Amino acid sequence: MDAVAAEVPVALAYNDEPFAVMLGTPQDIADFALGFSLSEGIVGAPGELAIEDIATSLEGISVSLRVPPARAAALQSRRRNLQGRSGCGVCGTESIEAVLRPPPRVGDGPRIAASALQRALRELRRSQPLNALTGATHAAGWADADGALRFVREDVGRHNALDKLIGAMALAGADPQRGVCVVTSRASYEMAMKAAQAGIAVLAAISAPTALAIALAETSGLTLIGFARDDGHAVYTHPQRLLEDGDDAVAAPRATDTNR
Amino acid sequence: MDAVAAEVPVALAYNDEPFAVMLGTPQDIADFALGFSLSEGIVGAPGELAIEDIATSLEGISVSLRVPPARAAALQSRRRNLQGRSGCGVCGTESIEAVLRPPPRVGDGPRIAASALQRALRELRRSQPLNALTGATHAAGWADADGALRFVREDVGRHNALDKLIGAMALAGADPQRGVCVVTSRASYEMAMKAAQAGIAVLAAISAPTALAIALAETSGLTLIGFARDDGHAVYTHPQRLLEDGDDAVAAPRATDTNR
Repeated sequence: MDAVAAEVPVALAYNDEPFAVMLGTPQDIADFALGFSLSEGIVGAPGELAIEDIATSLEGISVSLRVPPARAAALQSRRRNLQGRSGCGVCGTESIEAVLRPPPRVGDGPRIAASALQRALRELRRSQPLNALTGATHAAGWADADGALRFVREDVGRHNALDKLIGAMALAGADPQRGVCVVTSRASYEMAMKAAQAGIAVLAAISAPTALAIALAETSGLTLIGFARDDGHAVYTHPQRLLEDGDDAVAAPRATDTNR
Repeated sequence: MDAVAAEVPVALAYNDEPFAVMLGTPQDIADFALGFSLSEGIVGAPGELAIEDIATSLEGISVSLRVPPARAAALQSRRRNLQGRSGCGVCGTESIEAVLRPPPRVGDGPRIAASALQRALRELRRSQPLNALTGATHAAGWADADGALRFVREDVGRHNALDKLIGAMALAGADPQRGVCVVTSRASYEMAMKAAQAGIAVLAAISAPTALAIALAETSGLTLIGFARDDGHAVYTHPQRLLEDGDDAVAAPRATDTNR
């Protein structure tokens, strides 16, 4: 395993105002810009975002984005709330309220058979070319209700991988209500938040969820599945969307067979 | 595995000014506050930081910190540089320059036998009570040059786990030059940056490094080891501190046996 994953600063500016810099993998930057804008609630639909420029320099990648005046004003007031009080840490906003935004409710979502989830996980495992080369990247995938994997995006950061996936789905017009999102990481609060904000109804993570992610999923109506592996999974919230083998359109019992 | 890891917002304020909020595991918060302050270069020594209050509320944990006037002024100018241009994303500062700080040079550091590294990794694997319960946490450990593990800290976030470790070491007066830091995660830029800033000379990660982490380690003199496992490891930078079996105080060859 000689190849090393690239990690570069990716700076996003909206209407000529710098907003944020993330460290990420320099692929699928347009997907990332759109997905981040959607999952952070900066725009509500792909049509509200125009990517004006993606410029690569020695220091990193700068992305110039344009949003409608009303969205820019909302962003400006989000900025104003932050001013005078803070800068920010390398990985944090400066107030607890800004971190814990109220989650949106997700829609009805799909019904997914446990066997379809297993299929999606199997296909995700085989669909990570960057990770096969470097061993350093996470992946986020999207499968139809029958488990057929339709989109995969990779990044050194799990939040970025999910943002790229959300952007790719939005560009393709895929309905986030109609399938399942599978991720190779743990399910932390921010992963659940981004999924819910993007309208995803079922999020399955290969590793463990946190308590805060479970609380958010409960509140927002998101079906949160953890320890999703070949030999089992655990459903933490809103289990009605996952049909265990033998079930037929009835709510699944809370699975506890994690077998990690 | 029924226990779930807690994840709460931890807000840090310096001299009554909010600075940053991280989502983390609500343990060892004093270690975290000191380690973050050191690894982000906000203070240069433990004696410069006073923890005035750690307040827990429904929303999270607020930590009130006091630093000397000169440090507060430097922090204020760091804040001023950010004002008017930005807020920040959930996980980012707003300018590329603020992300890519020039790394400090680390000192001579230790000589570590490969067998000592293996011992440290073995002991780290057995010393993660929170992860054994929840499967959701990363760990950062510190071992003497003979591989005896002296400190371990856990957190749902790998940066937080490393910050907690750095704080715990500083409180105990442990010399970061004299051993090896082992982490259960990948070695990204921020992990290498925090290690170098804290004066750690050898950082061994269980998973892959990124290209930017390697570049930073090269520049700052940090020995960066990736894929550190039972059956091998890969040394990416400054290999002279790692003595492969059979070596005796000579520089180790660049190891490529990752056997992942």
